[in-house]
Amino acid sequence: MDLQYGLELIGTFVFAISGALAIREREHDMFGAGFTGFITAIGGGTLRDILLDSYPLVWIGDVRFLYAILVGILAAFIFPRFLSKLRKTFFLFDTLGIAFFTVLGVEKALSLGMRPEIAAIMGMFSAVMGGVIRDTLTNEIPILFRKEVYASACLAGAIVYLILNYFEVPRDINLLISISVIIAIRMLSVKYKLSLPRLD
Amino acid sequence: MDLQYGLELIGTFVFAISGALAIREREHDMFGAGFTGFITAIGGGTLRDILLDSYPLVWIGDVRFLYAILVGILAAFIFPRFLSKLRKTFFLFDTLGIAFFTVLGVEKALSLGMRPEIAAIMGMFSAVMGGVIRDTLTNEIPILFRKEVYASACLAGAIVYLILNYFEVPRDINLLISISVIIAIRMLSVKYKLSLPRLD
Amino acid sequence: MDLQYGLELIGTFVFAISGALAIREREHDMFGAGFTGFITAIGGGTLRDILLDSYPLVWIGDVRFLYAILVGILAAFIFPRFLSKLRKTFFLFDTLGIAFFTVLGVEKALSLGMRPEIAAIMGMFSAVMGGVIRDTLTNEIPILFRKEVYASACLAGAIVYLILNYFEVPRDINLLISISVIIAIRMLSVKYKLSLPRLD
Repeated sequence: MDLQYGLELIGTFVFAISGALAIREREHDMFGAGFTGFITAIGGGTLRDILLDSYPLVWIGDVRFLYAILVGILAAFIFPRFLSKLRKTFFLFDTLGIAFFTVLGVEKALSLGMRPEIAAIMGMFSAVMGGVIRDTLTNEIPILFRKEVYASACLAGAIVYLILNYFEVPRDINLLISISVIIAIRMLSVKYKLSLPRLD
Repeated sequence: MDLQYGLELIGTFVFAISGALAIREREHDMFGAGFTGFITAIGGGTLRDILLDSYPLVWIGDVRFLYAILVGILAAFIFPRFLSKLRKTFFLFDTLGIAFFTVLGVEKALSLGMRPEIAAIMGMFSAVMGGVIRDTLTNEIPILFRKEVYASACLAGAIVYLILNYFEVPRDINLLISISVIIAIRMLSVKYKLSLPRLD
Repeated sequence: MDLQYGLELIGTFVFAISGALAIREREHDMFGAGFTGFITAIGGGTLRDILLDSYPLVWIGDVRFLYAILVGILAAFIFPRFLSKLRKTFFLFDTLGIAFFTVLGVEKALSLGMRPEIAAIMGMFSAVMGGVIRDTLTNEIPILFRKEVYASACLAGAIVYLILNYFEVPRDINLLISISVIIAIRMLSVKYKLSLPRLD
């Protein structure tokens, strides 16, 4: 539980940094960057909890998430060049982040008594909708529609988790496998420039 | 009741197809198309129910809606050309869809004890906001702001329903009239290229 | 209380006008303008109340807000040129509006038992998110990301309110000071074209 909580805080922190840096090259000031970092970090989980009627929202009920975001934004303000150079590291962090948030979202939906189909959608939403909302607000085509194997990697990982859960695989092993599936799909698709087929 | 439920499922299915096909000509892969179909199908009703604090959301509480969407998306994947050729048929389906969802939305808001003014807005939102959210996510100008007599046809139909309901016209007759009003306004406005006046 | 209620209604009315006029120069019809006015007027408070799980939403529970919006939209329809010429007056109204809504949002969050950090965010959201949603729907870059000292003026005013509240400054004096801070920051930043620094 403590490990999970710590990882969730770190994931929120990483999402805040990547959100704040995402608009660095555009004509935004520091406030806009901070706002974007905030939206990226809370968006997915907030949408999930509103859809599931699960209140208080995580960042409203536990102020530590707010401070994780604030520290992430400040880091992006103070070390923008250094952090941007860490792009490869950040790709790793972002991939870890979406993998972990997917599984957290699935588990939260299941713990609220949701069917597995709903839990899979909620897992994917937790991971990717923060970025989707950020891109929509800043008038970008959401990453979901550009880098094809992004949300679908999360959905695949969520389904793997649910299948293993159905067969009562111990939670630790399940977490390890389903998170690895998401990371592997994402990494391989970027490395080999794989993408899903288009319609027609 | 059974007829209404069946029509609601069919409407959801049709919206999923039209949503998935809407982005067919753009640079999206199958996942993006499926995501768009999903958002189009659930968006309006979800926004209505969140605004009215009515939980669980329809598609979360009743898994058949999720499967209606899935079948719609698969149909769009398997027969994209065939379905795109059915454009005229789809215009009819979409028009039937918004007409029916408008009245369903009005009735749901009234059943939750809402005032008629709120019910009219909720009816319109149920019908058009799925498409608005879809267009916003994919960086299009929402249809609401392009094809003028679209949301306003729904609003007109909602008001007709509420007036007839006030005068205690039997529900079946009321449904028939108010749905026909929406279809007629939409059809005539497209046929004769009618539009509302612009400001100034 | 009565003064506060009256000011809130006037603020809603002003936001509806500015929202309806905001798209006057673009290719929208009257319905699109009305829809935009509506979204601008209710967006911020609605998002705040959904995040805080505070139902019924203000405009759903009290129909007078709906009529204030309707009158605002009609005013924009009937006197678009006259109202557009009042641009300077409107800048004043809009500034008064965001100042007042910020403080109202902070007070509402505190009254629901929220921590001051959350109350500050809710105050800012109440003031600016209606405009952000409007700009997102109409495919504009939200004002938040263009006119830098806009949302940040609200956030500064919210923090001033919370500090004075912590030191138990009487509410009337606190309202006066924190609203003045927002207005002063906004006015001075526009007059002297001040803006926050950009990242890097």
